[in-house]
Amino acid sequence: MERQPFASAANVSERLAQPPALAISTVIFALRPSAASGRPTLWLPLVRRIREPFRGMWALPGGPLTQADSLLDAAARNLRDTTGLAPSYLEQLYAFGGLHRSPSQRVVSIVYWAMVQPTEAEMAQESENVKWFRADGLETLAFDHNHIVDYALWRLRNKMAYGSIAYHLLGEKFTLAQVREVYEAVLDRTVDPANFRRQLKQTPHIEATEEYLQGGKHRPPRLYRYTGTMAEDSPVP
Amino acid sequence: MERQPFASAANVSERLAQPPALAISTVIFALRPSAASGRPTLWLPLVRRIREPFRGMWALPGGPLTQADSLLDAAARNLRDTTGLAPSYLEQLYAFGGLHRSPSQRVVSIVYWAMVQPTEAEMAQESENVKWFRADGLETLAFDHNHIVDYALWRLRNKMAYGSIAYHLLGEKFTLAQVREVYEAVLDRTVDPANFRRQLKQTPHIEATEEYLQGGKHRPPRLYRYTGTMAEDSPVP
Repeated sequence: MERQPFASAANVSERLAQPPALAISTVIFALRPSAASGRPTLWLPLVRRIREPFRGMWALPGGPLTQADSLLDAAARNLRDTTGLAPSYLEQLYAFGGLHRSPSQRVVSIVYWAMVQPTEAEMAQESENVKWFRADGLETLAFDHNHIVDYALWRLRNKMAYGSIAYHLLGEKFTLAQVREVYEAVLDRTVDPANFRRQLKQTPHIEATEEYLQGGKHRPPRLYRYTGTMAEDSPVP
Repeated sequence: MERQPFASAANVSERLAQPPALAISTVIFALRPSAASGRPTLWLPLVRRIREPFRGMWALPGGPLTQADSLLDAAARNLRDTTGLAPSYLEQLYAFGGLHRSPSQRVVSIVYWAMVQPTEAEMAQESENVKWFRADGLETLAFDHNHIVDYALWRLRNKMAYGSIAYHLLGEKFTLAQVREVYEAVLDRTVDPANFRRQLKQTPHIEATEEYLQGGKHRPPRLYRYTGTMAEDSPVP
């Protein structure tokens, strides 16, 4: 895929004769502390492009689909190559297939998304060409990747209303305040602690454990566990 | 795509060198009366394959993605070519990309689904190679298309629980009994009429009109209208 400033007539007809190319990309979300306030916020790792088009710009991890990989295998590879992590939550998000997503060739991207727990995100490697960014306020990314991240954020906010998705961003055990922080990070607004606590305690799949969070200054808060199914709207087809 | 009973070694290496092919298929659901009871049941149109592989078998409408069509345009074309209808509800369902979906070539299919209102479904043409079938109890279809229909049914049942999806299978105005029939058809079980009616009347987006259904023997039932948003979990990206 080389960038060509002026496509010749021969290039255009050649392009029309080829079938569209197929790529897999992955949006990887995790909670990390904001640099300013220390509060949990949503972050994602991006990869710097080392070739044209969009050389030098940041992009979602991904690449062409090979013959040997299933879609899910390809997405798991994106996750592993970018962060060193194995997937716990990794699902298909959407296929993006507009005609002009790439300057040199038509590319259809099937996008997966992953949720990573904070302890895992801490272990993820960074390098010169792999860095984590806050999901809100990203600079201009390669291709239509800002649009894809915005779409993923929109879906994540919608899913928060009814699903188990929040718990994919937490560890196995968590305090009620930590659940509230996930909602605040994803919805990007503050949530009343007392109301939220009351509502959460009425939720069927939140179970109190006999353990307490250690290490704080105050009375240690109780740890809870999510007992519902972690499956969302797609079984593995 | 010709069927080859025994792939030679040359074919295998040739196959591995090619990128996977990309197709668009569309699952089109509508309510139609059951032949036996006359009650509304879920149906979908299928197309008979006129070439290998799976020649003579029924399949979901679809075909290779061309350079000129967006994903949605290709799905709308499937719908139009199969039924003569323009889409009212047409959304991306899922991308299926297993390694062995087609015997001669690896094909990744991005599947859309459409909901069609009963009056539209009545107008849909049938022909020797296009026929409507009941969604439950389908014969063996070409490729993995039984699996895709089962997945679509599973998603439809899940969506019934919280969304506006039922109203895409009805006309603009409907009786409360008609809404119940949609639920019964999709969930494939009977629903208590009094309980359902009570619950539905508490739903925020169901509004009574001043009109009544004409033509029955009994006291004509009131017509209602859905006033919520028809958008589900995907804006047009």
